[in-house]
Amino acid sequence: MRARRSLLDLDDLSGEELTYLFERAREFDLLQSMGASHYLREEMNLPLRGVACVNMFFEQSTRTFTSFNLAELRLGADVVNLSPKDLSLATKGESDEDTAITLSAMGISVLVLRHPEAEYPRRISMVFDGHVINAGDGTHAHPTQALLDIHTLREEFGDITGRNVAIVGDILHSRVAHSLTHGLRRMGANVALVGPETFLPDSYTVAAESSNGAVTVTRDFDTIIPDVDAIVLLRIQRERFSSENHAGTIDDREYIERFQLHGKRLAKLSPDAIVMHPGPYNRGVELDDSVLSFTGWRYAKQIAHGVSVRMAVLDFLVNGIRAGVKL
Amino acid sequence: MRARRSLLDLDDLSGEELTYLFERAREFDLLQSMGASHYLREEMNLPLRGVACVNMFFEQSTRTFTSFNLAELRLGADVVNLSPKDLSLATKGESDEDTAITLSAMGISVLVLRHPEAEYPRRISMVFDGHVINAGDGTHAHPTQALLDIHTLREEFGDITGRNVAIVGDILHSRVAHSLTHGLRRMGANVALVGPETFLPDSYTVAAESSNGAVTVTRDFDTIIPDVDAIVLLRIQRERFSSENHAGTIDDREYIERFQLHGKRLAKLSPDAIVMHPGPYNRGVELDDSVLSFTGWRYAKQIAHGVSVRMAVLDFLVNGIRAGVKL
Amino acid sequence: MRARRSLLDLDDLSGEELTYLFERAREFDLLQSMGASHYLREEMNLPLRGVACVNMFFEQSTRTFTSFNLAELRLGADVVNLSPKDLSLATKGESDEDTAITLSAMGISVLVLRHPEAEYPRRISMVFDGHVINAGDGTHAHPTQALLDIHTLREEFGDITGRNVAIVGDILHSRVAHSLTHGLRRMGANVALVGPETFLPDSYTVAAESSNGAVTVTRDFDTIIPDVDAIVLLRIQRERFSSENHAGTIDDREYIERFQLHGKRLAKLSPDAIVMHPGPYNRGVELDDSVLSFTGWRYAKQIAHGVSVRMAVLDFLVNGIRAGVKL
Repeated sequence: MRARRSLLDLDDLSGEELTYLFERAREFDLLQSMGASHYLREEMNLPLRGVACVNMFFEQSTRTFTSFNLAELRLGADVVNLSPKDLSLATKGESDEDTAITLSAMGISVLVLRHPEAEYPRRISMVFDGHVINAGDGTHAHPTQALLDIHTLREEFGDITGRNVAIVGDILHSRVAHSLTHGLRRMGANVALVGPETFLPDSYTVAAESSNGAVTVTRDFDTIIPDVDAIVLLRIQRERFSSENHAGTIDDREYIERFQLHGKRLAKLSPDAIVMHPGPYNRGVELDDSVLSFTGWRYAKQIAHGVSVRMAVLDFLVNGIRAGVKL
Repeated sequence: MRARRSLLDLDDLSGEELTYLFERAREFDLLQSMGASHYLREEMNLPLRGVACVNMFFEQSTRTFTSFNLAELRLGADVVNLSPKDLSLATKGESDEDTAITLSAMGISVLVLRHPEAEYPRRISMVFDGHVINAGDGTHAHPTQALLDIHTLREEFGDITGRNVAIVGDILHSRVAHSLTHGLRRMGANVALVGPETFLPDSYTVAAESSNGAVTVTRDFDTIIPDVDAIVLLRIQRERFSSENHAGTIDDREYIERFQLHGKRLAKLSPDAIVMHPGPYNRGVELDDSVLSFTGWRYAKQIAHGVSVRMAVLDFLVNGIRAGVKL
Repeated sequence: MRARRSLLDLDDLSGEELTYLFERAREFDLLQSMGASHYLREEMNLPLRGVACVNMFFEQSTRTFTSFNLAELRLGADVVNLSPKDLSLATKGESDEDTAITLSAMGISVLVLRHPEAEYPRRISMVFDGHVINAGDGTHAHPTQALLDIHTLREEFGDITGRNVAIVGDILHSRVAHSLTHGLRRMGANVALVGPETFLPDSYTVAAESSNGAVTVTRDFDTIIPDVDAIVLLRIQRERFSSENHAGTIDDREYIERFQLHGKRLAKLSPDAIVMHPGPYNRGVELDDSVLSFTGWRYAKQIAHGVSVRMAVLDFLVNGIRAGVKL
């Protein structure tokens, strides 16, 4: 095991560590809900005081970028943002690995990476003498999004063993779906992957170890709705739609008819079921406006939990498991 | 009234609140003039400690952007800057309102917005559960610029009731002129709007309530110069000049002859009159170099006051009116 | 002498000040190696608390930009980054001097500038009422790079009087070479400037005063290798290569044959000799991979020293020479 822990996908975390992260995230939820005056008092205990974080987002991002920034600042870190455009010009042909070696020599402890290439963060973590956090790599993984989604489910339901979660949309191309499916099964939840054929994997390989929940793949959303505890809608990228329905594209009217979550489908949900979305959502595609005013709509909770979960991850990677901080 | 106060234009502030802001700005002027060592001692009282601010400037800006950044940092806020280019790509078709909802769910308390669209900040403030500050919206308003200008006048003259202020230039297209005229009249000053016909409003509607000062519209700069206490020069955008004098454009030589402030016009000012400019100024257009060395030139004061006024606005919106902090 | 000290090139520093900076940098090396927990304890003594720094990099940079950012944050400064693209649009034709005047009026104390134009920082320092730091200006100078290189040599050898340092590559176009040659000679080291004719100055003018070390200009790398204590490799910009060998360009195969540092040349070095590079390095051009695993390769040390030296420069410019802070 490496001396410095990274978070590249959920496999990097043991079950015990996952549980710790969710409990720590709850502490940060509380701390943040107590507002500004509290930070004042706790300032001398900021867990990342003096720790330097660099955020390198090679794909554009508003919410994940802002969320990591805020998490780092709230923990007292020194934060430097390197923008993708500046980087491409500034590294002057230097390999990505050499840039990472340079940043760790500089004393940067944490590198948060988003990149269109799958496994880019893993490649960098091989040479970076510090903590790498994957903030989304191609269609591969987005572990902090999965953590915040599971944290949201746990805050709603407590233990999620045996709970049924439907993930709806472009499963095949979604790093969110990949990481979340993996995490839900480890926590004992059952997952239904729902979408048109083009968007679904041919089959789903079930790993033998440490996966307790079942996985179903289905194109029939309406049949499963009454049985689910939670629906996770995925963003449908409009460039995937085509009126001519080429391979890899789908018809938008058909998609909306079969998979859009709207008032009629909401009405079939069980009373305590919730709806989630990683954002940004397309009104009129994967959901209509009735979802946004639905009492079980948890988008805002997810966003808030995103900051707390990232604070928990940062604190855990840098400081390890610690006795509950008096908040 | 909304639970969270915003500053969209000067109408959002009562007379009492205006006075409070100017007094608080004076405290911050003093604090800043005392330099770095003082921050040390006061650190535990930073009024925005733990408060997250996001600056979103959809129009480029050096001075307003830097000024807000500095004000936020000096108050101890956690600051995230989202650049317009990144945003346009990153929101992936998400509506501006949905982005704002997301940012407030994340725990962002203050959103500072500059945007080419008039009333954009108001539109966002309808959905953002926090404080919105208008840092300039189209040709509509620029309230913190008006506040810093009035603060500069008050530091010079004390009570500005009955003082005569000439605003010179492209009144019609200037958000600075709109906000400042409004603010000056509320504080009891008389305003002369000066410029070529193309740049002047056809008429000026005088609001009945809480406007004490008079407004004059004139094309004759030279006649009023001896009577003014202050001249506010506006930036003349060169793209508005045309040798063929199309509608909406003016002739530059004629403009310079009739409205440029230069040595001869300075000589006609009363001894204690001052000259201001929101910046950036065009040497050789609205002013010549003699203005820059004029003893009554208050540009540097305005810039310094800009930071203090913005600190006062941020503190007021977040913390309300407070008993004078011992500085 | 100006009331506010700037660092435009090494001539701005006396010999005594140079020595102080290297000693102070060593203190910051130690402080940083002690890690995050230490910052906590020392927080109230952060030497740039309340001091505002603006970084304006008109040329792209990863390592120098990140290094200055980190140095400023670690000293507790308030940091605002203005990106070159935003600036070119935002200053609206304002002269660079007027922008600088505005920033100093705003209370910005330190301006870190990188610019393609030689002497740009000096031009700005004439009007900016604060401290200007040259972070690289055209082919002219890069003083903090020279300081970190000399600091690295001093940490290796102690007093470097009489030590032999070879600088290899495009001497003519390198601001690193210019500043470093100057600095090494002032510290009493002997410098050999090595490269193909196209990359070498016709002659080297030796300044009479305060230059103790000798300078040799040579095209024969192999002959001097056994006698050097340190080799500083420069980055060779690929655009300078041409297969047709135009004036000002060189042949890449010939360059590699005569000047690349590789295993065979490393073997001829004396046992305690070291190799340095300002980065980013081109594997396969000025060095091959054997250099990167060479025990005397000091690139990582240089990078780490870069932060400490910049902390020392910032502290010195703002606070002057101080009795050693208890670390």
